[in-house]
Amino acid sequence: MIIPAFVDKYAWLYPDKTAVIFEDRRCSFRQLKDRVDRLASALSRLGVSKGDRVAIILENCFEFPEIYFAIGKMGAVATPLNYRLTGSELAQLLSHSGANTLIVASVLVDRIVPFIPELATVKHYVCVGEKTEGTLDYDDLIGTASGKLPEVEVSMEDLFVLAYTGGTTGRPKGAMLTHRNLHCVCNSWIVESTVPRGSGLLVTPLFHVGSIWPLCFNFMLGNTVTILARVDPEQILRTIERERITYTMWLSSIINAILSYLGSSKFDLSSLDLITCGGGPLAPVQLRRLAEFAKCRVHFAGGQTETGAVVSAKVEEQLRTQPETLGSAGRVAYDFEVRVVDEQDNDVPVGRTGELCARGDAVMKGYWEMPEETAQALKGGWLHSGDLVRMDEKGYVYYLDRKKDMIKTGGENVYCKEVEDVIYEHPAVAEVAVIGVPDEKWGEMVKALVILKAGEKTTEEEIIALCKQRLAGFKCPKSVEFYDSFPKTGLMKIAKNVLREKYWAGFERRVH
Amino acid sequence: MIIPAFVDKYAWLYPDKTAVIFEDRRCSFRQLKDRVDRLASALSRLGVSKGDRVAIILENCFEFPEIYFAIGKMGAVATPLNYRLTGSELAQLLSHSGANTLIVASVLVDRIVPFIPELATVKHYVCVGEKTEGTLDYDDLIGTASGKLPEVEVSMEDLFVLAYTGGTTGRPKGAMLTHRNLHCVCNSWIVESTVPRGSGLLVTPLFHVGSIWPLCFNFMLGNTVTILARVDPEQILRTIERERITYTMWLSSIINAILSYLGSSKFDLSSLDLITCGGGPLAPVQLRRLAEFAKCRVHFAGGQTETGAVVSAKVEEQLRTQPETLGSAGRVAYDFEVRVVDEQDNDVPVGRTGELCARGDAVMKGYWEMPEETAQALKGGWLHSGDLVRMDEKGYVYYLDRKKDMIKTGGENVYCKEVEDVIYEHPAVAEVAVIGVPDEKWGEMVKALVILKAGEKTTEEEIIALCKQRLAGFKCPKSVEFYDSFPKTGLMKIAKNVLREKYWAGFERRVH
Repeated sequence: MIIPAFVDKYAWLYPDKTAVIFEDRRCSFRQLKDRVDRLASALSRLGVSKGDRVAIILENCFEFPEIYFAIGKMGAVATPLNYRLTGSELAQLLSHSGANTLIVASVLVDRIVPFIPELATVKHYVCVGEKTEGTLDYDDLIGTASGKLPEVEVSMEDLFVLAYTGGTTGRPKGAMLTHRNLHCVCNSWIVESTVPRGSGLLVTPLFHVGSIWPLCFNFMLGNTVTILARVDPEQILRTIERERITYTMWLSSIINAILSYLGSSKFDLSSLDLITCGGGPLAPVQLRRLAEFAKCRVHFAGGQTETGAVVSAKVEEQLRTQPETLGSAGRVAYDFEVRVVDEQDNDVPVGRTGELCARGDAVMKGYWEMPEETAQALKGGWLHSGDLVRMDEKGYVYYLDRKKDMIKTGGENVYCKEVEDVIYEHPAVAEVAVIGVPDEKWGEMVKALVILKAGEKTTEEEIIALCKQRLAGFKCPKSVEFYDSFPKTGLMKIAKNVLREKYWAGFERRVH
Repeated sequence: MIIPAFVDKYAWLYPDKTAVIFEDRRCSFRQLKDRVDRLASALSRLGVSKGDRVAIILENCFEFPEIYFAIGKMGAVATPLNYRLTGSELAQLLSHSGANTLIVASVLVDRIVPFIPELATVKHYVCVGEKTEGTLDYDDLIGTASGKLPEVEVSMEDLFVLAYTGGTTGRPKGAMLTHRNLHCVCNSWIVESTVPRGSGLLVTPLFHVGSIWPLCFNFMLGNTVTILARVDPEQILRTIERERITYTMWLSSIINAILSYLGSSKFDLSSLDLITCGGGPLAPVQLRRLAEFAKCRVHFAGGQTETGAVVSAKVEEQLRTQPETLGSAGRVAYDFEVRVVDEQDNDVPVGRTGELCARGDAVMKGYWEMPEETAQALKGGWLHSGDLVRMDEKGYVYYLDRKKDMIKTGGENVYCKEVEDVIYEHPAVAEVAVIGVPDEKWGEMVKALVILKAGEKTTEEEIIALCKQRLAGFKCPKSVEFYDSFPKTGLMKIAKNVLREKYWAGFERRVH
């Protein structure tokens, strides 16, 4: 069954059960199905057909789930974009995807407006929120729609989501995820973690595939899904108590916020059965503290956009039986296969470092309109993750470093080259290396190392300000350090691994 | 992941865990993988290639799981046949499937020998058990095999099992089940019933798809699987106690045997978490008694070879919250869609009788070399089950009968199960079959055939009186006949067609 069909099924079996909760809005499964069908019929009337990309730029909101399901149900391709990107970055992705329709929050539409003349493919702008001149109003659209679905066959092999990840080359890469891919990764985690039936809470941004996945599997189980707009420890804990939440998914930044919040003991969290942690590795001490605090099962999930999550650490189990494995990302998840390979794609011996590869129905179909990158990523039928890992004889996977020059910060991927390209535009800069350095809150923090041209001057503030003009906030360096020279590799490339050493001294790994 | 790949995965993750137990033989997952690989390499050396059918005629035995997995792993098609069939019936199926290899129990091979000259396609006979002249010895074969797998790509869309179902027309029908089909139905039930990790017990014949399915999902979860050769209540209960069985699957005949076994209270069954009941409808009173006896979750699974199981009654849950639904087969299972249609394939209104249709990845690819029957069975993309059901507004499905097993009497339709459910409530009744027999006045007359529990007594009058208290007059049996035993089908269902023969001798048709 394609995932949107689960909504239909529960609308029939449990029509009055609450499906979605966001702030003071709620809808039942029957109402959700009705809204999904109306939106699908409205988009169809606008001219959206099977295979068309419908882009989405929204913060977390009540409408997010119905938008995904309506697009999927009509065989179109949901293309969620990161609302933290700049207008220029968003326009680049809109063009690349060739979306013919954009669903955008009224509060974000100004960012796009200057680029509309360049966006040749986008025929329709639909605004969610305040009515906005020159755009179609979302509520009007579904309010006047027939709810009659277009007659179209949607198969498991059709695309459901086009998920953009940053590109190392500076070119955006869109991972094509079919209904099959998402169905598989959802089932994998339902079984791997025995996800409870009941009530799910999502606080992570729903544009991200790492949130689409728990969103979908909660609906596959017929769970009520409560969505929060932002990370506020008190609000999260109060919601768990009030809605009797059984499942939630937290990133390390959320976990840190919750664990440092002083009022947390006030709340009744006894309904919680399972917390999935993800979006980058967590220190064993954080996992241990979380398990003690939440008194429920805590599972870590590791993976990436192209595969969903492929490894799982079962924290409470490992604490009990094998605490020494807590620094690992766990073992291969249900219905996935993994290998660790060298540069020639040969399996490396147990305990040796290599690239983590994964296989399974969850692995993406490829990158949108990038046959070469697709062939490389899926060489030999295995997704090459770019993560350098060590696997012990029992199959526990230890993340060590990244093949790609990429920083993972607060659940986002930042490709160093993109940031370096901007800094290089500063007239005083001779050479720049952007690296990730360890950070308690974000996992890793973006740092720029800069060599100035002889006789030129600039400041840390100036470099950061330049980046902020051009890049989404999470991509901008939090600090800049000036160097006289960089160590180089044999091929005269900057030896980033050497540069990183100074900042990672005392850490076992070189990624967080 | 194809299901045989799960064995490889657990052989790596839990090499020393026990995988299979049969009588005094046990093997670990590492040993099971080794045996699977050896068998696959041996079959490959014999000339078995991808897509070839390998027929199997075996009673339950230690080797059964490894045979399925080896055949599936090399992309060949496991074609298990009912060992209760006559030599001539088996030869017909062997010819129909075009199998090039037969794996057969030594104790059963004599049944085939007279037909060998006719079996043009079968090149190799492999005997399991005593060495048998003129056949290849199974143990020699795997003992001398390299274990080097043939280089072949096996996809989820390739056939895994060719499952013969009794043909109502006399022609055998082989349901083609792909790796995808079995993977889907297994996942469906793992999620639907939250199948426990631990230890599974299988007592039903492993040639039947109704057993392949729990066999496979237990291995997908990495569970130890204990197999018994036959239904012996004391042995079943002792095995549950000794192996700390968490999951088992029982047919109504097994349930009856267990519930009438006097020594059952002697055993510790506290490890049991879930019993799946299937292989035909069960009377509510049986379900209730089973739940009381086993003190664990009891789920009924309804479906057929062509789809796997599509509906599920959660007995312990329904007893608690909606006891009035216990006569139903439950609601549509996870990852399946169902409809109830009339002869023109239009949905019937809620509460009206129609044919149950199902859709999902578990639905077979079709019947082997029967394009017309396939087109008819899969009309409009929905599997037409041939089951007449009524569905209430909450989605509970009430099986009324097989399309052809309904009694038409005096212009009224009588659904046998409804009458049988009432007769089962009589404390003296062990087993009952209600059939239609020819009648001059009414066309067909309702007749009940009854087996009494050991030492119990009742009369025709008492049975009829019980029915009259509960059912409209036309539904009540006009006569009752007492039997010592019933003929059974492969899955131990009562062979009603055989029972009817006696009464319809001399008539051209079997309905009036």
